[in-house]
Amino acid sequence: MDDLLAQVRQGSRRAVARAITRVERSDSQARDVVTVLYPHTGRAHVIGITGPPGSGKSTLVNELAKALRRRECQVGIVAVDPSSPFSGGALLGDRVRMRDLSGDPGIFIRSMASRGSLGGLARATAAVVKVLDAAGFDVILVETVGAGQAEVDIANMAHTTLVIEAPGMGDDIQSIKAGILEIADVLIVNKADRPEAANTVKALRLMLHMGESTRVRHHGHLLESGGPGGKVSEEEEWEVRVYETVATTGKGVEEVVEAIVAHRDYLKESGEWMVREQDRSRQEIEQLLQARLLEQLRQEVPQAERDELIAAVAARETDPYTASRRLLAWIKLDE
Amino acid sequence: MDDLLAQVRQGSRRAVARAITRVERSDSQARDVVTVLYPHTGRAHVIGITGPPGSGKSTLVNELAKALRRRECQVGIVAVDPSSPFSGGALLGDRVRMRDLSGDPGIFIRSMASRGSLGGLARATAAVVKVLDAAGFDVILVETVGAGQAEVDIANMAHTTLVIEAPGMGDDIQSIKAGILEIADVLIVNKADRPEAANTVKALRLMLHMGESTRVRHHGHLLESGGPGGKVSEEEEWEVRVYETVATTGKGVEEVVEAIVAHRDYLKESGEWMVREQDRSRQEIEQLLQARLLEQLRQEVPQAERDELIAAVAARETDPYTASRRLLAWIKLDE
Repeated sequence: MDDLLAQVRQGSRRAVARAITRVERSDSQARDVVTVLYPHTGRAHVIGITGPPGSGKSTLVNELAKALRRRECQVGIVAVDPSSPFSGGALLGDRVRMRDLSGDPGIFIRSMASRGSLGGLARATAAVVKVLDAAGFDVILVETVGAGQAEVDIANMAHTTLVIEAPGMGDDIQSIKAGILEIADVLIVNKADRPEAANTVKALRLMLHMGESTRVRHHGHLLESGGPGGKVSEEEEWEVRVYETVATTGKGVEEVVEAIVAHRDYLKESGEWMVREQDRSRQEIEQLLQARLLEQLRQEVPQAERDELIAAVAARETDPYTASRRLLAWIKLDE
Repeated sequence: MDDLLAQVRQGSRRAVARAITRVERSDSQARDVVTVLYPHTGRAHVIGITGPPGSGKSTLVNELAKALRRRECQVGIVAVDPSSPFSGGALLGDRVRMRDLSGDPGIFIRSMASRGSLGGLARATAAVVKVLDAAGFDVILVETVGAGQAEVDIANMAHTTLVIEAPGMGDDIQSIKAGILEIADVLIVNKADRPEAANTVKALRLMLHMGESTRVRHHGHLLESGGPGGKVSEEEEWEVRVYETVATTGKGVEEVVEAIVAHRDYLKESGEWMVREQDRSRQEIEQLLQARLLEQLRQEVPQAERDELIAAVAARETDPYTASRRLLAWIKLDE
């Protein structure tokens, strides 16, 4: 094991693949891998990429990877698909990808499909990112399917978040979710050669503008309470911009890479990089705590007892609050 | 408080609104409300409705509500939007809705927007459904924005799950997420008057067919291990079908209501209703356990200690696994 992880640190692709397989196998193996590698992480620029199905996300991720390779970056791609392996969706996407990017030793691709809980997937994804980070990948692209809050949580592990939209929502401003705009560091309208693209770009810019005025108001409040000297300089703010790309032809991809590099510089110079590292750390610790609690309950409370409580709640004989208190009493966590 | 909850049980709309406000205010108020009302729940048919932005979900939910009203059902609508109140999205949707359905005392509408964590939103949504259930609503429509795993989790609280798709994905079968098909009891292609609708319907039916063959294989396996008498009758299986609607004109809505009623009958007769109640109970208990653990850590571990640990993890001085073990040691949950 130590030998394997030493090889990971030397950048061996085979060792990376094997370490990732261990990480995916169980939480305890993930723990063994991460505790050893963790001190050697923190160098990679982790980029989260999220957007609805059909936005051409995977194609764009491939193009970004190629553009980053031209800048001599080693690129890791983690494609997270919380949907089940029912249709083999992750595998299919993988194969398309492999054909496109294979043969370049500077790119490593891994698909992550849900095998159990979403929490398990998020933990495994975090561990895989660490393996790639320790192996010396400069940029790690974490692509998530969809734009639900869970995907947002996974994107939260990133230093930089790209949100991809497809054209055709210009007539329906409500379909652009505010939460998505809030997490975006870089906004991209892909398939920008479609006629509806201009409307979508306009709608997104309008939403950003609305957000901007909210932010200004918020600053005013900060200034009031902060008193003199508490002024937030305009230069310290990152300005979210809307980019247009056509991933199938590569159009606009170079501009997005420039934005990614600029965002990294901004994070480092403003101190925001460390703030995001702390947010990520807090989230990871919480996830591990919750997983550990459930594990402990599984070990200490007999299955029959757990099933009986669940049946009682389903039958309205007891309520879920009382049931959870009784479970906690079992492992002496109650008051 | 007891007075308020007695009024909820009598179906007072004002009491329901006030109880929901309490539920949203804090986890402890939700607990107080739910523990009292819980024995009086379990009667309502809870229907989860999920689908991507732009699929016309809200309009369809309104039409379903009206059709259910024509069948003398009391209808509760809970619109869950995990995006932040940043743009007032939930409020805007609400206003459109109110204009459309207001004046009918048989319909109660509530929007739920995220105020903190997604976990908090899922817990609050579960509690709101219980308030409406105890107040005597026959059908509760829980509408979630997007189709991420988190929305799937919320939909899991439902007895019946409707998945809505919009036309225009026929050329991109991968964009139909397998996970979404797996949770769907009823599939709907809305905006079916668009030319691309036929392709989408075809693609969905093809996916369903592929899923069907998987299921048959799975049954074969069950039969083998179950031996004689373990045969699963074909009639016991619910067949997921694809429906076409045009919510703006009401076309196809009546057929969807028929499917909803048929699914309820199927659940009751097959015993699946109770299975889903148990799944829901298990999930709720787990959510409450996790919330309680984090609450206990907040109370027992001094803020400075927590911040120090998080900073140490962010600085790579310790790893997240070690940090979480140290936190658990604080509340004596470690080994």
